[in-house]
Amino acid sequence: MVQDSGAEATLVDKAKQFFKPLPQDMATAEFATLAPRVELGKKLFFDPRLSADGTVSCATCHRPALCGTDALPKSIGVEHRMSARNAPTVLNAALQFKAHWIGERANVEEQAMKSLLGQASFGNPDNAAVIRKIKALPGYADEFAQAFPNEKEPVQPENWGRAIGAYERTLVTSSPFDAYLKGDAKALTSQAQAGLKLFIDVGCVSCHNGVAVGGAAFRKFGVVGDYWKETASQPIDEGRYKETQDPADKYVFKVPSLRNVSMTPPYFHDGSVATLPQAVRIMAKVQLGETLTEGEVNDLVAFLQSLTGPLPKKFATEPVLAPQAFGATQP
Amino acid sequence: MVQDSGAEATLVDKAKQFFKPLPQDMATAEFATLAPRVELGKKLFFDPRLSADGTVSCATCHRPALCGTDALPKSIGVEHRMSARNAPTVLNAALQFKAHWIGERANVEEQAMKSLLGQASFGNPDNAAVIRKIKALPGYADEFAQAFPNEKEPVQPENWGRAIGAYERTLVTSSPFDAYLKGDAKALTSQAQAGLKLFIDVGCVSCHNGVAVGGAAFRKFGVVGDYWKETASQPIDEGRYKETQDPADKYVFKVPSLRNVSMTPPYFHDGSVATLPQAVRIMAKVQLGETLTEGEVNDLVAFLQSLTGPLPKKFATEPVLAPQAFGATQP
Repeated sequence: MVQDSGAEATLVDKAKQFFKPLPQDMATAEFATLAPRVELGKKLFFDPRLSADGTVSCATCHRPALCGTDALPKSIGVEHRMSARNAPTVLNAALQFKAHWIGERANVEEQAMKSLLGQASFGNPDNAAVIRKIKALPGYADEFAQAFPNEKEPVQPENWGRAIGAYERTLVTSSPFDAYLKGDAKALTSQAQAGLKLFIDVGCVSCHNGVAVGGAAFRKFGVVGDYWKETASQPIDEGRYKETQDPADKYVFKVPSLRNVSMTPPYFHDGSVATLPQAVRIMAKVQLGETLTEGEVNDLVAFLQSLTGPLPKKFATEPVLAPQAFGATQP
Repeated sequence: MVQDSGAEATLVDKAKQFFKPLPQDMATAEFATLAPRVELGKKLFFDPRLSADGTVSCATCHRPALCGTDALPKSIGVEHRMSARNAPTVLNAALQFKAHWIGERANVEEQAMKSLLGQASFGNPDNAAVIRKIKALPGYADEFAQAFPNEKEPVQPENWGRAIGAYERTLVTSSPFDAYLKGDAKALTSQAQAGLKLFIDVGCVSCHNGVAVGGAAFRKFGVVGDYWKETASQPIDEGRYKETQDPADKYVFKVPSLRNVSMTPPYFHDGSVATLPQAVRIMAKVQLGETLTEGEVNDLVAFLQSLTGPLPKKFATEPVLAPQAFGATQP
């Protein structure tokens, strides 16, 4: 018993060197989570009427029922157009140093804003069309004005992104691992603790660390071997190289946050791997040159499962959107 | 004051001849709302993974945020295929004597089941594909067995429909009008009461009556004049004639329930009319040969707004779906 407590203390102390529990929310000095902004952002997040064909909202690729993902290898937007990469969960996403798999979005605000014109997301032709649409829906003009006071023209795509960002910065999913880091040794099963120890000792932690358990750096996918020889990737994605044209960026992606990872298959930037155990095996092999035993994989998966937290109520409960042309005015 | 009370009593007594308040739920002897069935049905309702391309769930056309509709003229399903008609709200839908605009589905259970193979809804090739998919998702086989005990093969499209039907039969939205019918004279504004009186006197009530304020009969759309001369209908829909080939069924549709109608634009079987006042004007003209004043339209709209009730919690809150291949088993 004393020995057990000692071992737990050692492990948790080690873990605290690499990880931090989640904050209450993900507001920053620049991006505050003011109530009118969060409320507006939540409505916009669930509103498909702002997309080119009226079918796509943020919640199309980031569904509450699927832990903020769409469970697809690659997302499908307006007119059934396929995205280049897999949709990560929107939960805790604002913890990451960049948005998107190759980090070409600075933050969740920019990601949201640019999706308005993305051809495989909202598909709008230009910002003017977006502004017209927002103004045509009852209530939004007033809510933008409240959320962005003292602005002359508050209905702007940038503020659309900032409102959705404010909402997303409240979507935190505190997990058993957070309780463990805060001192509750029983919050992790012994198998999850064994997995945590392995996660540190094998070297997963060298990339997946910090409050988001990842999401803080770029890394080459396939340090020891080509990733596509282990996955079902088709076609091969050159990662950041596409954006920067720098050969050093070939096959380089953002290290994803592993929070809620057990709830968000399929895996990797292209959703090419269906199961978490297989994803763990591949990562060990192509990043660390390790071939894991089945027991080690199971332990690591048990640890990764401890990164799952309950859905925030603000995410699980849909808003009520004012219907177009509500009321008795003339059309 | 005495006179007012007298007038209210008269109106409410008259209203009670035509209408009935909503029941607690819409279970029948044949279609019970057993808890395991409702719980399973809710999960299935929100699960896009059962559709051919993984993008469509019942909640695609029946979104909580849009009062159980998709706010589109005609719904869009897998592969961006367009439905023939507008998606009515799923709220209180089980009150109606048939499902679908031309009543070719007997009830909500059959509507749900047949949508699995509908080319503009879930788009699955056959029942065998559906059964394979359900069984491949963790948890569902057990939940079907619990929801349909003593069945040898509970995972069946028919039970998919019955589970979703059981869930839908709990989605009741009690409204100010229900409170009024139950004796709370103040539940309706005086304008809504004027609208109710008009609704009865002008003759709307001859089709839109009963607990669903409609949904109990077929009627020709365009008794006095062709409907498409007043709407933006394109192409002209011949209604039940398409199904029955009986000339008497030309332009005949199910009288829709008007519950929550102010929250569910656009209007009519083809979503050809954007606003409720315009829909009211057109109905008066082509069904009753009446040209309403703007004041009358406003009163009728005020009454129709009193048919809106709050979203049931079971509908506003999304379920948590078990991820594919959760856990540490081999893929």
